[in-house]
Amino acid sequence: MPNGLLTDLYQLTMSAGYFEAGRLEERATFELFVRRLPHHRNFILAAGLEQAVEYLLNLRFTPDEIAYLRSLPQFARTSDGFFKMLSELRFTGDLFAVPEGTPIFAGEPYLTLRAPLVEAQIPETYLLAMIGFQSMIATKAARVVKAALGRDVVEFGTRRAHSPEAGVLAGRAAYIGGCAGTSNTETGLRYGVPVFGTASHSWVMSFEHEREAFRQLQALLGENTAYLVDSYDTLEGTRRAAELGRPLWGVRLDSGNLVELTKAVRKVLDDAGLPEAKIMATGDLNEYKIHELVAAQAPIDVFGVGTELATSADAPSLGVVYKMVELEGDHGHRYTIKLSEDKHTLPGAKQIFRYPDHDQLGRSVECPSCHGGPRPEALLRPVILRGKLVEPLPGITQVRQYAAESLAKLPASCQSLFEKEHAWRVEISPELLGLYEKVRQGVAL
Amino acid sequence: MPNGLLTDLYQLTMSAGYFEAGRLEERATFELFVRRLPHHRNFILAAGLEQAVEYLLNLRFTPDEIAYLRSLPQFARTSDGFFKMLSELRFTGDLFAVPEGTPIFAGEPYLTLRAPLVEAQIPETYLLAMIGFQSMIATKAARVVKAALGRDVVEFGTRRAHSPEAGVLAGRAAYIGGCAGTSNTETGLRYGVPVFGTASHSWVMSFEHEREAFRQLQALLGENTAYLVDSYDTLEGTRRAAELGRPLWGVRLDSGNLVELTKAVRKVLDDAGLPEAKIMATGDLNEYKIHELVAAQAPIDVFGVGTELATSADAPSLGVVYKMVELEGDHGHRYTIKLSEDKHTLPGAKQIFRYPDHDQLGRSVECPSCHGGPRPEALLRPVILRGKLVEPLPGITQVRQYAAESLAKLPASCQSLFEKEHAWRVEISPELLGLYEKVRQGVAL
Repeated sequence: MPNGLLTDLYQLTMSAGYFEAGRLEERATFELFVRRLPHHRNFILAAGLEQAVEYLLNLRFTPDEIAYLRSLPQFARTSDGFFKMLSELRFTGDLFAVPEGTPIFAGEPYLTLRAPLVEAQIPETYLLAMIGFQSMIATKAARVVKAALGRDVVEFGTRRAHSPEAGVLAGRAAYIGGCAGTSNTETGLRYGVPVFGTASHSWVMSFEHEREAFRQLQALLGENTAYLVDSYDTLEGTRRAAELGRPLWGVRLDSGNLVELTKAVRKVLDDAGLPEAKIMATGDLNEYKIHELVAAQAPIDVFGVGTELATSADAPSLGVVYKMVELEGDHGHRYTIKLSEDKHTLPGAKQIFRYPDHDQLGRSVECPSCHGGPRPEALLRPVILRGKLVEPLPGITQVRQYAAESLAKLPASCQSLFEKEHAWRVEISPELLGLYEKVRQGVAL
Repeated sequence: MPNGLLTDLYQLTMSAGYFEAGRLEERATFELFVRRLPHHRNFILAAGLEQAVEYLLNLRFTPDEIAYLRSLPQFARTSDGFFKMLSELRFTGDLFAVPEGTPIFAGEPYLTLRAPLVEAQIPETYLLAMIGFQSMIATKAARVVKAALGRDVVEFGTRRAHSPEAGVLAGRAAYIGGCAGTSNTETGLRYGVPVFGTASHSWVMSFEHEREAFRQLQALLGENTAYLVDSYDTLEGTRRAAELGRPLWGVRLDSGNLVELTKAVRKVLDDAGLPEAKIMATGDLNEYKIHELVAAQAPIDVFGVGTELATSADAPSLGVVYKMVELEGDHGHRYTIKLSEDKHTLPGAKQIFRYPDHDQLGRSVECPSCHGGPRPEALLRPVILRGKLVEPLPGITQVRQYAAESLAKLPASCQSLFEKEHAWRVEISPELLGLYEKVRQGVAL
């Protein structure tokens, strides 16, 4: 799958600029991080690394893509050598990243990329979109799962996702965030995520009688049957489902007052001698509504969450940025920072040192425990070195498990559905602060 | 590109159910529409039809996909014949749709799909995600462009889009909505959308001196040069850019108080004898901020809009649904409706009859002007008949032009940035109402 052009044009004009300036051999270090945690979030669950790695390992430009670039006015003055270089471009750099499923915080790098300038610049757009999106959805999923207090949550949102492909990826990220699975079949095949689903209203409406719609579904799905009971009248639908009885998994409600209806539905099922029949609720749910339903003791066993999960509706974008922090060129090594009025950055490659109750953001070269004291976990690890994958990435089940364990270690305040001040402390190490001051004074001549 | 599995699993279990029930020959009619206009919107600009058509014309299942389905517990009782049918499946039905770039309203179908049950059911998920997303972005773009009052708007949002592919499609939809182009190079190649972009902060930071970064950019881009002047100090940066002078396109500001800064920047440029130099503003812009900047007479020539546009941040999902409205089976023809408590639908295939000051939603078979009176435009037109494209779809430039003309015909209240009651009247035709009553009474036995 060609991917070279899936980037902002300026990445390519800048690349041409580096080429023309004879700077191909210079190596830059970029970091990807989120400036501020979004609305109501006290952490971000990192996700999307596997796809980012796949992109880097396959980065290339086809002849058609290069011909297109040559046709653009922005490349009218660019020499042939640039396009030749582009046609041979492969990623030969290094990638360090936190493992997928790691909770991280504002200012902490998800990844550090060190490569020749052009190879470091072109991936910016793709990495931001892929990692930003999956991390946003994994975070949302973790919130929804937390609100469900042990009940299963299934991701049902592809139809409202931002394009079909976003739906496929949302299913993956939601699973990492703790969902039991997804309705997206492609996500199942491509990423090994469990898939769920039985029938919709159109199934019920396609039969003249609801009972017949249920009977046929049961014949097909047996113990996987979930009767959708609200097409005409929820309680009447439940009675018809209960008459057919076993085998069944349970019933699904997609509308109405879910607290009252699920209680009434539970009674119908129990009275019919079907205490094991489960109740799934769907229909514009999110972590806030699930929190209320659970608090109201609505007898719901599984939540299906669609639009709100696949679009992270209450915080539909993540302010991820990708900033140059170091540069090694002909004239030696430099640390770079941005001093725009409202957008300062910290210089130099960093490491996240995680302690049981806080993080320290330090320089990648420092060793906080070398002089004694507790030994923190260093979260950024090598993933690609000199263009080669260091070791196979963990499978998705392992990532999901790691996410659950990592989230469980966070204090309760971090996992609140609402913003908590100082939920997690991120210190800047004295060494990193010192570097910042030095670089800042050097720049502000 | 295989696409069969890019759907919710229940579309496939239902398809198996229709197969097992011997209902393969029945033909269903589905309509895709939005239940309610989102927050602050008084219209939706339809977009995404081209990709929906491409999907339908290429719908198929590969052997690998079928093997995956066979491995799922949901298909344990499904007969081999179903999988054989699936391996040979092609879309053979009819598609009617409003042209891309048509403003439409709540309850009005974007498209009507009529096909054998299985062929009509499987595409639901993809069509909703593709058309819902592109329409949402085209609508957002139209709002941003309206707020800019004639100034150009360029879409810059891929990095914050919901996945890289969503970014590619957002660039296309934004162009339909009136943007001048996009930064996404893939969108340029794939869809013929003009692409823009020059350099980022990392370009400036990669040079020891800002002046040298500017000089190199100018050597490369000439009259396309846009100097990014806010990396260190916006006015100082502008002075350095002005010293280099022509050729240039202008300068870009990405931070700070844009009203004050652009006025000061304009003065620096004018004083330097560069009155033709343009000013582009970027950085977390949206239609509301642009409205304020324009009202404050900030001398901005071009707005670059990213995150808010590519995610439709203030209304990040569109409540599109796909509902069965007719069914022709062995036992004759039936109109279908959904009577869930809060989600009623109208039965039967429909037509949107557009008059200069209102729409009438009628039955597809009625003729409002046959008995005299003004002749409305019938917006839903045949696109695919018996699986074949009726005629080539219009090119994107034509779609964009049609959108601009159609939007210009709407009353000012429709194009307000805020919700207006009764901005556009959509009547239900007496014939359609009559059908609804009849079907409703028939169902509520």
